[in-house]
Amino acid sequence: MEVFMNTSSVRLMIAAPESSADLLYKTKFWAPDPFIFLEIDSETILIASDLELGRARETATVDVVEPQSEYRKALKKQGLERPRLSDIVHAYLSGKNLEKAKLEVPGSMAVSPVERLRELGHEIIISKGSFYPERRHKEPWEIDAIDTAERATERAIDQARRIIWDADVVDGVLVTDGEVLTSERVRRVIEIMLLNEGYKGSPPIVSCGAQAALPHEIGHGPLKSGETIIIDVFPRSMETYYHADQTRSVVHGSISNEIRRMHSAVSEAVEMTLEGIRPGVDGATLHKNIQEHFLKSGFETKTVDGKPQGFFHGTGHGVGLEVHESPRIGEVSQILEEGDVVTVEPGLYYPDIGGIRIEELVVVTADGCRNFATLDWALHG
Amino acid sequence: MEVFMNTSSVRLMIAAPESSADLLYKTKFWAPDPFIFLEIDSETILIASDLELGRARETATVDVVEPQSEYRKALKKQGLERPRLSDIVHAYLSGKNLEKAKLEVPGSMAVSPVERLRELGHEIIISKGSFYPERRHKEPWEIDAIDTAERATERAIDQARRIIWDADVVDGVLVTDGEVLTSERVRRVIEIMLLNEGYKGSPPIVSCGAQAALPHEIGHGPLKSGETIIIDVFPRSMETYYHADQTRSVVHGSISNEIRRMHSAVSEAVEMTLEGIRPGVDGATLHKNIQEHFLKSGFETKTVDGKPQGFFHGTGHGVGLEVHESPRIGEVSQILEEGDVVTVEPGLYYPDIGGIRIEELVVVTADGCRNFATLDWALHG
Repeated sequence: MEVFMNTSSVRLMIAAPESSADLLYKTKFWAPDPFIFLEIDSETILIASDLELGRARETATVDVVEPQSEYRKALKKQGLERPRLSDIVHAYLSGKNLEKAKLEVPGSMAVSPVERLRELGHEIIISKGSFYPERRHKEPWEIDAIDTAERATERAIDQARRIIWDADVVDGVLVTDGEVLTSERVRRVIEIMLLNEGYKGSPPIVSCGAQAALPHEIGHGPLKSGETIIIDVFPRSMETYYHADQTRSVVHGSISNEIRRMHSAVSEAVEMTLEGIRPGVDGATLHKNIQEHFLKSGFETKTVDGKPQGFFHGTGHGVGLEVHESPRIGEVSQILEEGDVVTVEPGLYYPDIGGIRIEELVVVTADGCRNFATLDWALHG
Repeated sequence: MEVFMNTSSVRLMIAAPESSADLLYKTKFWAPDPFIFLEIDSETILIASDLELGRARETATVDVVEPQSEYRKALKKQGLERPRLSDIVHAYLSGKNLEKAKLEVPGSMAVSPVERLRELGHEIIISKGSFYPERRHKEPWEIDAIDTAERATERAIDQARRIIWDADVVDGVLVTDGEVLTSERVRRVIEIMLLNEGYKGSPPIVSCGAQAALPHEIGHGPLKSGETIIIDVFPRSMETYYHADQTRSVVHGSISNEIRRMHSAVSEAVEMTLEGIRPGVDGATLHKNIQEHFLKSGFETKTVDGKPQGFFHGTGHGVGLEVHESPRIGEVSQILEEGDVVTVEPGLYYPDIGGIRIEELVVVTADGCRNFATLDWALHG
């Protein structure tokens, strides 16, 4: 067995902040390309390209910012024609007498630099689960950032549903300002409102009828009167980088009894879950309770022609620097803790009827939860 | 040495399409969460979550779509409480008599599932460089998609520079419609125009003066008369997922001789590079020629107080499903080929003067290149 000379604790990330919430959490530094982050015995180091050096020195919340170019030059002099970020990490560590370090890396890190560092003699420890589990517990300023994002999200959803409710109908299809109202048009209204308030992210879902029965279908084409329309919006603040997440389901015109029953069952599922959330509760229990509630209400979950129907996704997920993060509320047991920010989003989906999902966003408090969402759940205004 | 029973060629990706152009290239399937892609002896397989199953079957360009849930259930019955995507891959391969396969994975794939599959007995081959090198060569329909994106990009840049040029000045600061014209306001105009045409992506750069001398600073605060303003826009089509990339540098009001000289030197650098591009040319030669041209023109590249000045980034990069992809035109030798789509974007940056960058986007043709960009390079309209 090889003996590692140094017992320093070294944590390493090589990633772009857009795809690594852990990196963003530790550096608060946004850059389009991957960079190096090291934590050596609680000192934090960012090794940036020349393109980012000035900005990194001014804004990154780390102890030291080093230029990649300096190491790159030295490595080239040593005969390495194309030094990679992993080689730069090795050069940096060698300069700190850590030629053979114990390197802890996140499981999401790219395999290629990890393999290279292993080849160079480092011992690699791949972190199981979250690299910074403390990210799950939201501080007051993070709760404020998420709350602010939820406000903007809810204004956009409210605007979108008003446009839908107020639309005219021609041959069953919604029409606004003389033009067919499509998923794309409503999505654009939402995205532009959010952009104007400093939010971006994946396209929101505006899906109608049979499309609404496919939970991740973002929706396309004309919206129709009398059909379920799901509006699911989950933007990221380009100032704080925190997300919000909210869903409402609406109908234009007359509402069938089937849709009304589905909406009631989903509303009850949300209510009972919001009542059940508190520190110490197992998410799997909350999830199971919803499954039983739906079954008792006559909404079966099954597979028809290879396609799932009913309630076939999780009940909720953590929200923060990632739109989907720890903890999850679903099949797998996971105990909720004070400071968790999670969605509650049961839904029912049947191709013949449509889809209904209501999604609230809450922070777990000492004795229950506080709901960020304030918008009503009305099917029709 | 272990003997691997089967000689099938198996390629594997586990990723979300937003962060894997290779996955998007092979499946044309957009989903918010990671999914499994396998290629076994040229048969392509997508293993999707129940949430994506319907859409995947309808739209993904693969031979087979399988449900993750089926394998997950079987694995749970076998006692695996929390099956991961890597376990599902193993279960799928085992069903194909590939319990110990040779698995080729991209170097960008997350290390965690790779390690798991190695533990389960598979031989892992980490692909050096691009997983689908054929992605570099752009087919006519891809060239059309990029051209269309460049048209939208250029309309947005033209609109942005007109707003800048036409602005009033109060105490040296630009003012439009009675309000201070900031980087943020111009950025919003660009983003909303692009969103309306179906494009999204990282925020465009609108940076002024000393900020423009930091190439990756996206810019903030009031724009000023007489200072360099860099506008760099690189959106992705939400229909084709291909990118465009264009940069213009402009000045409001009077232009100093220093800025004029810098702009001339950069313009000449672009021209000589566009003339030099053809199949067989080494990008490193083009890059070196620009470095020499700048030096001869009196623009030195150096480090002052730890901050780089002059020309200190690459000359260009490939553009396609990624905004930065192969090939690169820079320090490292790389021969250009017909069908490459690359930027040409020399720039000069001095904190005391500002920054000037001009970026064109070209496709390498049989005997030269075709420039997608058609917008003039004027500093002032």
